[in-house]
Amino acid sequence: MAASVSASRPALRIAVLGCGVVGTQVVRLLTQQGADLAARAGAPLELVGVAVRDAGAPRDGVDPALLTTDAEALVERADIVIELMGGIEPARALILRAVAAGASVVTANKALLAVDGPTLYAAAEAAGVDLYFEAAVAGSIPLVRPVRESLAGDRIRRVLGIVNGTTNYVLDQMATAGLDLDRAVEQAQHLGYAEADPTADIEGFDAAAKAAILASLAFHTRVPLEAVHREGITGITADDVAWAGRTGHVVKLLAIAERTDAGVSVRVHPALVPASHPLSGVHGAFNAVFVEAEAAGELMFYGRGAGGAPTASAVLGDVVSAARHRVHGGLGPVESTYADLPVLPASAAVTRYQVRLDVADRPGVLAQVSAVLAEHGVSIEAVRQAPRLIDPPDGDARRAPAPSLAHLVITTHAATDAALSATVAAIAELDSVTRVVSVLRVEGA
Amino acid sequence: MAASVSASRPALRIAVLGCGVVGTQVVRLLTQQGADLAARAGAPLELVGVAVRDAGAPRDGVDPALLTTDAEALVERADIVIELMGGIEPARALILRAVAAGASVVTANKALLAVDGPTLYAAAEAAGVDLYFEAAVAGSIPLVRPVRESLAGDRIRRVLGIVNGTTNYVLDQMATAGLDLDRAVEQAQHLGYAEADPTADIEGFDAAAKAAILASLAFHTRVPLEAVHREGITGITADDVAWAGRTGHVVKLLAIAERTDAGVSVRVHPALVPASHPLSGVHGAFNAVFVEAEAAGELMFYGRGAGGAPTASAVLGDVVSAARHRVHGGLGPVESTYADLPVLPASAAVTRYQVRLDVADRPGVLAQVSAVLAEHGVSIEAVRQAPRLIDPPDGDARRAPAPSLAHLVITTHAATDAALSATVAAIAELDSVTRVVSVLRVEGA
Repeated sequence: MAASVSASRPALRIAVLGCGVVGTQVVRLLTQQGADLAARAGAPLELVGVAVRDAGAPRDGVDPALLTTDAEALVERADIVIELMGGIEPARALILRAVAAGASVVTANKALLAVDGPTLYAAAEAAGVDLYFEAAVAGSIPLVRPVRESLAGDRIRRVLGIVNGTTNYVLDQMATAGLDLDRAVEQAQHLGYAEADPTADIEGFDAAAKAAILASLAFHTRVPLEAVHREGITGITADDVAWAGRTGHVVKLLAIAERTDAGVSVRVHPALVPASHPLSGVHGAFNAVFVEAEAAGELMFYGRGAGGAPTASAVLGDVVSAARHRVHGGLGPVESTYADLPVLPASAAVTRYQVRLDVADRPGVLAQVSAVLAEHGVSIEAVRQAPRLIDPPDGDARRAPAPSLAHLVITTHAATDAALSATVAAIAELDSVTRVVSVLRVEGA
Repeated sequence: MAASVSASRPALRIAVLGCGVVGTQVVRLLTQQGADLAARAGAPLELVGVAVRDAGAPRDGVDPALLTTDAEALVERADIVIELMGGIEPARALILRAVAAGASVVTANKALLAVDGPTLYAAAEAAGVDLYFEAAVAGSIPLVRPVRESLAGDRIRRVLGIVNGTTNYVLDQMATAGLDLDRAVEQAQHLGYAEADPTADIEGFDAAAKAAILASLAFHTRVPLEAVHREGITGITADDVAWAGRTGHVVKLLAIAERTDAGVSVRVHPALVPASHPLSGVHGAFNAVFVEAEAAGELMFYGRGAGGAPTASAVLGDVVSAARHRVHGGLGPVESTYADLPVLPASAAVTRYQVRLDVADRPGVLAQVSAVLAEHGVSIEAVRQAPRLIDPPDGDARRAPAPSLAHLVITTHAATDAALSATVAAIAELDSVTRVVSVLRVEGA
């Protein structure tokens, strides 16, 4: 259905400005997922050019014929301009030129939006075009749409965000591996989570730009970057992290935007977060934003805040929204069913299982059970054998080992539901197996 | 700015069908937050009627003059119809009538969407009106927009959702308080988390309807409710939950939608989730949906999946989107700055603090420090005193108590940054205080 719609529409011309880590991924996905994107956008998306500083340098997977150094000419011949250059100029001038020429703009440029967002929003509004920036706040985590649209009928009280993956990785390593700050930063650099000069991350500049954007969205208030109080993590010692743990907390670098009776407070600083709080479980380079709204209560959005592919995902979501708006004059229909994939029966589901058995407490039982699993092609990941405890009949809370019984807990590798059912039926037939106590799937591993 | 826009526009007429727990909250918020909603929607929202079965029964906070039993006439004179009756009929007929009359529709009706969503989507598309249903999948958690729009440029591989708060509460109580299933269900009923007849929840019917909607959104494929494999939690024993813990897992009722090479698998069943997985930390009646996408990687959306106010928040977000679409012919401008709240200095921020001090190891020191805090109006939540360990100078890993020093860890109640700074300065002056080791804010408590 949608395929015919998109075939009958003229293609939308897409220009990409900048071809670094994110740009390369955007070009790759535009190419590889062209058919899906066309179906969702309602028209084919045609990449008409990629503006770079040096058109001679080859880019992995990017057709050299698309490279140009003339970004100004490129934005004039595009319907949708994707700005991934970063920095203030020439990004700002190019976005304003694109908007004036009637193009919709998608940008991941947090520095520019934090410094001059309202100017750009006003220019887009005056020109009647879209300006989307989902990737600017927390990488792949959908946050701008939820805050702008889903919570548009609610009142946000507070936003607490882990919006910088580098510092979260560093603090997490300090907490879990006991490293000191310098060692943890070195490790982050080694893994590519931190730049050679980590100042923008560890001094909180990156988080402050995101905090300014988040606060302005959440509270419909212009928050200048200078108004964001900023402290980095350079003062955090291994001793601080250890004491945080001893008192039931973890140390996180938080971007905080809070609405009080007096106004709006926006700040970035390290803070102790109670171990029971959902933000405390955000490990490694992951990001998460915790939102407290009057009616909705507590919400959290979690995911990868940086990286080429995750950021490209957010950028392309915005591109499809901008395209749908141009094609349909709005979000367009739900189009939930264009793919029409086959819906499989439950027996085809492939997952891991944990099977618990009461077995005779004698040698050779595990070998028998293992043999049945092997016959059915179900492989074992882990086995645990334990005395079988039984509840005493008088309701006494003390449990005692059952004489002559053992408990076998088998975790399998992935198998189909059908294979597992047949396996369990065969195991139940074994003389040495008293009872199949439970069969539970293991998911999320 | 937006206030003048909305004042100059004719009001949009809003009809509410059904006035139960969610309907009452929707009416309350429409009334109380009228000015904010008008600013965000671009036009005033005027409640023109609330359809109920018995117009004589009074509804808390709802003007009796707005109550009507004639839902069919009501939908004909509305621009936006909010359907909160639940069930299949007459909800379906009224939505189709509203759409045919040119109204946009917002619904929280998961049962109807799971059974006959595509018919409704097609009717809305044919009529050129919006049909929004954010509240139908996971209450207040923004999920439909992120999946439909933010991830529109990506490919979703798998969705794992805790989408039923009742069963999550029950399983969480079994795990944390060691209750058996019956006792945990009774407790959920006592707290209002479970119905008198808990079948729809604990047998997984509610989760299956949400799984069907989620899968159809994620994979653009029509998933009939009958195709969803469904197992509830009635077979889960205290023993299962205990063994899950012993093997590093927790038991959760999951709604799973998975894309494989062969097609789409959609199922609801209890599963063991590794303790390291973000879903394992979803406690009580909270919901969360974990999404794995090709480019974005792992995402999680967390919040309250049910309840009057949270569901009303999602409904009103949809109402604002539908209104903006009618007013602006699209999402409308960013309008990030209409509220223009004052941005406060960092010294005005109110939060809790943890202050660590090296102090002389002698009686009376705590009394001195406490007195300084009291003088500055900063009250103490907790104090912990410990021997001060010092690192030996030769780099040996063993730490030894510092002779004559103690370590004092004070956690305060909320205070302003300014009050705390003054307090710490005064504490540092005390003879008995050797060093202020660190001052860290405590957030999220």
